[in-house]
Amino acid sequence: MGEKITIGIIGAGRIGRLHAENIVHIPKVRIKAISDIFIENVKEWAHQIGIESVTADYHDILNDPEIDAVLVCSPTSTHVAIIREAAGAGKYIFCEKPISFSVEETKEVLEVVKEAGVKLQVGFNRRFDPNFKKVHDTVREDTIGEVHIVKITSRDPEPPSAEYIKNSGGLFFDMAIHDYDMARYVTGSEVEEVYVQAANLVDPVIGELGDIDTAFTVLKFENGALGVIDNSRKAVYGYDQRLEVFGAKGSVTAQNEHPTNVEISTADGVLKDTLKHFFLDRYKDAYMNETHAFIDSVLYDKPLVCRGNDGLQAELIAKAAKESFETKKPVKINRETSRSF
Amino acid sequence: MGEKITIGIIGAGRIGRLHAENIVHIPKVRIKAISDIFIENVKEWAHQIGIESVTADYHDILNDPEIDAVLVCSPTSTHVAIIREAAGAGKYIFCEKPISFSVEETKEVLEVVKEAGVKLQVGFNRRFDPNFKKVHDTVREDTIGEVHIVKITSRDPEPPSAEYIKNSGGLFFDMAIHDYDMARYVTGSEVEEVYVQAANLVDPVIGELGDIDTAFTVLKFENGALGVIDNSRKAVYGYDQRLEVFGAKGSVTAQNEHPTNVEISTADGVLKDTLKHFFLDRYKDAYMNETHAFIDSVLYDKPLVCRGNDGLQAELIAKAAKESFETKKPVKINRETSRSF
Amino acid sequence: MGEKITIGIIGAGRIGRLHAENIVHIPKVRIKAISDIFIENVKEWAHQIGIESVTADYHDILNDPEIDAVLVCSPTSTHVAIIREAAGAGKYIFCEKPISFSVEETKEVLEVVKEAGVKLQVGFNRRFDPNFKKVHDTVREDTIGEVHIVKITSRDPEPPSAEYIKNSGGLFFDMAIHDYDMARYVTGSEVEEVYVQAANLVDPVIGELGDIDTAFTVLKFENGALGVIDNSRKAVYGYDQRLEVFGAKGSVTAQNEHPTNVEISTADGVLKDTLKHFFLDRYKDAYMNETHAFIDSVLYDKPLVCRGNDGLQAELIAKAAKESFETKKPVKINRETSRSF
Amino acid sequence: MGEKITIGIIGAGRIGRLHAENIVHIPKVRIKAISDIFIENVKEWAHQIGIESVTADYHDILNDPEIDAVLVCSPTSTHVAIIREAAGAGKYIFCEKPISFSVEETKEVLEVVKEAGVKLQVGFNRRFDPNFKKVHDTVREDTIGEVHIVKITSRDPEPPSAEYIKNSGGLFFDMAIHDYDMARYVTGSEVEEVYVQAANLVDPVIGELGDIDTAFTVLKFENGALGVIDNSRKAVYGYDQRLEVFGAKGSVTAQNEHPTNVEISTADGVLKDTLKHFFLDRYKDAYMNETHAFIDSVLYDKPLVCRGNDGLQAELIAKAAKESFETKKPVKINRETSRSF
Repeated sequence: MGEKITIGIIGAGRIGRLHAENIVHIPKVRIKAISDIFIENVKEWAHQIGIESVTADYHDILNDPEIDAVLVCSPTSTHVAIIREAAGAGKYIFCEKPISFSVEETKEVLEVVKEAGVKLQVGFNRRFDPNFKKVHDTVREDTIGEVHIVKITSRDPEPPSAEYIKNSGGLFFDMAIHDYDMARYVTGSEVEEVYVQAANLVDPVIGELGDIDTAFTVLKFENGALGVIDNSRKAVYGYDQRLEVFGAKGSVTAQNEHPTNVEISTADGVLKDTLKHFFLDRYKDAYMNETHAFIDSVLYDKPLVCRGNDGLQAELIAKAAKESFETKKPVKINRETSRSF
Repeated sequence: MGEKITIGIIGAGRIGRLHAENIVHIPKVRIKAISDIFIENVKEWAHQIGIESVTADYHDILNDPEIDAVLVCSPTSTHVAIIREAAGAGKYIFCEKPISFSVEETKEVLEVVKEAGVKLQVGFNRRFDPNFKKVHDTVREDTIGEVHIVKITSRDPEPPSAEYIKNSGGLFFDMAIHDYDMARYVTGSEVEEVYVQAANLVDPVIGELGDIDTAFTVLKFENGALGVIDNSRKAVYGYDQRLEVFGAKGSVTAQNEHPTNVEISTADGVLKDTLKHFFLDRYKDAYMNETHAFIDSVLYDKPLVCRGNDGLQAELIAKAAKESFETKKPVKINRETSRSF
Repeated sequence: MGEKITIGIIGAGRIGRLHAENIVHIPKVRIKAISDIFIENVKEWAHQIGIESVTADYHDILNDPEIDAVLVCSPTSTHVAIIREAAGAGKYIFCEKPISFSVEETKEVLEVVKEAGVKLQVGFNRRFDPNFKKVHDTVREDTIGEVHIVKITSRDPEPPSAEYIKNSGGLFFDMAIHDYDMARYVTGSEVEEVYVQAANLVDPVIGELGDIDTAFTVLKFENGALGVIDNSRKAVYGYDQRLEVFGAKGSVTAQNEHPTNVEISTADGVLKDTLKHFFLDRYKDAYMNETHAFIDSVLYDKPLVCRGNDGLQAELIAKAAKESFETKKPVKINRETSRSF
Repeated sequence: MGEKITIGIIGAGRIGRLHAENIVHIPKVRIKAISDIFIENVKEWAHQIGIESVTADYHDILNDPEIDAVLVCSPTSTHVAIIREAAGAGKYIFCEKPISFSVEETKEVLEVVKEAGVKLQVGFNRRFDPNFKKVHDTVREDTIGEVHIVKITSRDPEPPSAEYIKNSGGLFFDMAIHDYDMARYVTGSEVEEVYVQAANLVDPVIGELGDIDTAFTVLKFENGALGVIDNSRKAVYGYDQRLEVFGAKGSVTAQNEHPTNVEISTADGVLKDTLKHFFLDRYKDAYMNETHAFIDSVLYDKPLVCRGNDGLQAELIAKAAKESFETKKPVKINRETSRSF
């Protein structure tokens, strides 16, 4: 591309605004427009940070020939349609995860993106967390040798509202999907087989909505490695996000982050802070880094760290996890054509 | 019992000697005799630490009316016969794990012990490790609330010899059985269902012997909690032994032990020791504590921390694990009569 | 004050720019102007982040009646004159540390500020670091009881240039002054006596310039507590910034920060990252928080966390430290009138 | 020496018994006799662990030609006389610290030992702690380069009784003397100058007895390095024993030891155990290792790790510390003849 990139943002909710604030002052970036159906709430904020125009209709963004790239931050149910149109308009696309709740729809829209020849980055922000990235790099540099075991701990500080759960796609598609992506990212291998053992232990309301809140997902990778992810919707001590990769020559682990490194020693023991609680706080740098990487990718034609196929593969694992939970059996993933993305 | 306890030790291998040295100077304990088929190797050592007599025939110990209790430290294949005779002779029994490689034989001999009315402690030493005991106690005191998740990491520093593996009963009966016991111990609940995903990744020789060296065992407990154990036969950085219990009100974890707490900071990073390597070093206090607890139990009629039924239950889990690995399906444990021990 | 605050920044070097970027998008803040003698380097950056005007002459800022407050980020040698003028113009003042290299000049200009009745905050940014602030708060809440001992470790990753050292005021005024302030901040007590043992160990060039690079400062506080600070100009493993306060009921410590929490375990040991290296990275949040606190103080008349007298007291300690080093004796601080600020 | 060593122990208090239990079962060691003026308390214990004879008169030990070496574990006030006699009898000597409370007496008796040509080890047990030994070795291997700074934290969990304090020789001779030895041990350099800042903050009773309970000792070493030790008689969170050596190429630190590595995470924070509390528990391995080293030194003529001169040098520092505290000035150490030991 040229010297500068002009961006439009579709959706000005929590994440859309975060991305805007993270990139608006990068010298080579111009955020020309942002769209949101609740336009009145957005205007003052957009003006303050220097976004030029605000619109209720995202087509204004897609139809603007000056805009090179769009960030799709609207609800998941709208992703497929918007990506399809954006690809048709020749825009580069950053899309929040998941692409959709349907593996079939995701495949179809990735086909469209492929034919349009535009770049698509999926918002698996954790790949850009400095801790997890260092784990990934350490594995790639062969410091720990051939990978044997991957363990991911991923627990939210508190469950979302019942309303949220209803539309979330369930724990596997909403929450564990981040961890499925992380497992692929750090091993560099596809998942071959999935087994789930899960339960409703945190809150009976979640069970009544047909979802679970506590789960193990056991993974078998194509390269022979084994993985296990444990998810819980409620860790009272904070947002518990750990990663361990174990191999023939050692292991590498990412420990949790605390708001401070202060230790208080009294006759009762040595006390440290609970973990960082809020995901935007825990992954502050990751969100910053992922949009910077997208912009660099567009400006300098660097390879994408997280492509459309990564979104699809994580969905395939989530789908298999759901099936394993329902059938109480290990489930093999049928990948056939999916690699072409 | 009375004021003093007189003990005989059957088997003077590494563990038998360790137990002898751990208890010989407790004022209320008299080790009257030790037996071993290789008697010549034992004599000088036994004399030096003050054991009165050495014999090649363990019946000399069982027939001695002065001896109150025996420690069975001979090979696993001899346990059942010796326990049967010792119970018949009215001796209290401490037996190394596992009781046997056959769930049926274990059940039968426990029936004999029960009828004889003698105490039997099984040598799951890790219950007596100060770290794991504290995890157990923290759970019992309800500090972390209802248990949702148990995670055990249990990796040996290096695989045993091919010779050892042949006679070991396999990873599930030889190695993971400790972790199965730990899972029951910290949750205070029986295991209902077992699923295994395992592989031969460390050394092809192990696979050729029909064994695996890398395994996940997923457990479902009767109280609703979920558990996962990961085993590896080879962690190059040392003997990796961790435990985490997560519940409604928090979590409790036992981290690894290092030979020193020294940290070296240079331009390359901050470097700490590898983990303690040798199991006798890592579990030094645990071995000490378990024999003391047995002696206290006999002298003061305290309840046993680790009974015959604990040995049986761990074997039932190991058996189910093996079946799950072979059938590639989750396996339910049939427990029926087993609780009577 | 009113609903909004209009700010001018004097000096657009590294720190001036950092402050500007940290506050420019706070809704209640308007940065109207920035001045710098090298105006050409500043223009594009200022425009990009939305500062309205750029000037070579800081008087343009002081004479602008719309501007409520100024941030003085110019070289130390200019502070006294600018503060004097700014106070005369009725501006609220944030001034980088130290106020001056002369205790007498500092006293005089604080007298002027006092008479003008304007607020003055000194830029001891470390008071606003979340770690150190938590140590301070823990002490204030009496968690560790009466303070007995304060220990501060403060080591730079690498020495500054010879050019910088020449104009720095020396280690006590340039580097340790931060630690002297921290010692007062966490104990809440004035320093009564100072003893220094110091040496030139890092680089002979520093010694040739008449400065030292390695120093202990021992403090005796009015409340009876004892303190020690160790400074070094070169810690190859990063920016080593630790704090420990020990008292009758316990202790509280702030440990160092690492870029990641990743641990790599191999046969060589367990390796973590070196420390954060760059001070702007280590104290990123502190710089953010200190300007926010200044703005809140002006807008809502909140008490200042770090006042002119705090700047003066730290300079008094630095002066005593220098004298102790030169005389090789403990030096008492004569404080007489200094408390009136 | 020969194949075996025959030992006599003088003094069967807490430390004498500990040493006896630590070495009695080493195959090459025979403890032939132990002496104590309260002989009746000792008999049963000595019999139980296999010591052959017990006597009220230590001369029985010194006069026994079979005995090669003696451990002097009697009160400090008796050390000089016993060492003198033992050297005269040609025994190898292990003596608890300090040799005496008088630098002059210590020098005289070391002269006697030198002339007798017997080995003398002083009981600075901390040199044999695996943590501190590793710090020492790391420095010797030049991993951290030329030493610039040594920091020792040494705080007791609770103050001794008033009775003990009266006869202790004061904080510098009783408590800090261990740290003075450690400072010499890790730097490998003699101390040139001492400055003390100290206070009575823990308990007024200590002050009434003429002692202090909180102290900094600042050291200047002959090799140019600087050191600081902070002592307190009361750390409510346990026995706080840390060591840090900082140099041109990095730093090495020994952190504290906890009874377990368990962490409990709840909504209140992450809680670890207080530190190990009892010195015999904290330095269990150190006490074991120091007697083994003494025995090895005698049996195999290995160099002593801690000689008479080490005892003397630590006393010289303690004496200078006391003088600095009294005169409120730095004090230079006059070492002249002292190196000949």
